Amino acid sequence: MAARLVGDVETTVDAFHRGGFHLVQPAKGAHRSGVDATIVAAAVPDGFAGMLADLGAGAGAAAFSVLDRCREARAVLYEKSPLMAECARAGLALPENAHLAGRAEVVEADVGLDGKAREAAGFPRDVYDWVIANPPFNDPKDRATPKAEKAGAHVMDEDMLSRWIKTACAIARPGSGLSVIARPQSIVEILQAMKGRYGAVTVMPVHPRPSKPAIRIVVTGIKGSRRQMEFAPPLILHDEDGGTKFSARAKAITNGREALRL
Amino acid sequence: MAARLVGDVETTVDAFHRGGFHLVQPAKGAHRSGVDATIVAAAVPDGFAGMLADLGAGAGAAAFSVLDRCREARAVLYEKSPLMAECARAGLALPENAHLAGRAEVVEADVGLDGKAREAAGFPRDVYDWVIANPPFNDPKDRATPKAEKAGAHVMDEDMLSRWIKTACAIARPGSGLSVIARPQSIVEILQAMKGRYGAVTVMPVHPRPSKPAIRIVVTGIKGSRRQMEFAPPLILHDEDGGTKFSARAKAITNGREALRL
Repeated sequence: MAARLVGDVETTVDAFHRGGFHLVQPAKGAHRSGVDATIVAAAVPDGFAGMLADLGAGAGAAAFSVLDRCREARAVLYEKSPLMAECARAGLALPENAHLAGRAEVVEADVGLDGKAREAAGFPRDVYDWVIANPPFNDPKDRATPKAEKAGAHVMDEDMLSRWIKTACAIARPGSGLSVIARPQSIVEILQAMKGRYGAVTVMPVHPRPSKPAIRIVVTGIKGSRRQMEFAPPLILHDEDGGTKFSARAKAITNGREALRL
Repeated sequence: MAARLVGDVETTVDAFHRGGFHLVQPAKGAHRSGVDATIVAAAVPDGFAGMLADLGAGAGAAAFSVLDRCREARAVLYEKSPLMAECARAGLALPENAHLAGRAEVVEADVGLDGKAREAAGFPRDVYDWVIANPPFNDPKDRATPKAEKAGAHVMDEDMLSRWIKTACAIARPGSGLSVIARPQSIVEILQAMKGRYGAVTVMPVHPRPSKPAIRIVVTGIKGSRRQMEFAPPLILHDEDGGTKFSARAKAITNGREALRL
């Protein structure tokens, strides 16, 4: 859709879920939402009707995905970047998103905070029924990442995932869910941060094709559960010879027609 | 095959790899070899022609699998239990295993040792080209495990996997491989123990069927590599509606006709 300005940044309005909702996003740069957000959103079970927290919500792709599929859910979007928080608010104001607007709120706050600073920033305690997170994951040591990006919000601190998971647990009620999408290389940090906080942990690798290594993992757990962890069958994005087209399951998931059923 | 005695224990002689090799095993109890040993053996690449160490070798299933498939490989089998070490030696003496006997040696020693005790027990330093391990994994907290078994060699100490991986690294040359088969729940302990010792780590989940959670992981790494870890596509043991029959790939792997190609 045609460009508009948020602050002085050029943005686009883009359709997700085959038009089920729209996002206002910066026209250029590393902040544009993609498949990851819709996949982690699909970790929230069908029929979810509680309070969702989206950590590092960006323009709102993951939270809006959940709200579009789960029509009785409500959500709070936590986002540190003033620009992205403004994009998320602009998204909620779109007439196309009228079915979401009354159920969502954007809070500009840093998910990486701890203790009193976190409470002062507006994070409640023991409230949410599900928390989703799609944390930035450019590795500071990854030479493929351009310098400009490294300097921005997309750089991941050494223990960023741990701090995010601590925040997730602090703001969620016992028995609630947490779903994180991350790089496979983050598995140890994620599982260690969840240890003692979450049980019934399920790790689902996401492979681009049946024969290729995973490019993401979706890790889900239940706060306070004692059940042991599992590896779920993987999600395969494309059939082996399917070109750039999504597999049937990936299409259903990224279009909000199917949950991951972990 | 008919029972025979090793010491005063009744044993059987069982064919593996469709008769490619045979094992002498106790007729009863928790020590009988199975699918796990042949799967971890398949992590050793085709054409491997170096020195293999099999940690916790039992009756020799994993090492014999490698020697049967890789006809120029040699192996040292480390086993703590005098009975199982004796079974492994009896296996090497079988006429059916004449093609393996000249290439294998059994050392009765505890893989969990460290430092000077480890060297005194007969473990060399920086020697092996590949190390495989199929550590015992009954969880002491697992109520499904019978008491008699818990008291035996199959009980896993808290940090047993870490100690085994330290031993594996100590006895292996730089650039060599390590492959471990374990429960999915051991992934953090394994990856942490490999950290700083092994790179190019590949985690391969093993699922009983396409729709079921993994029951095992095979973790492979290269000593001293700096490459980041990956999740390989899973191994599926049975087709979704295939009853107890192995899938084509599982059959090829457990019969020594195919390596895992990690």
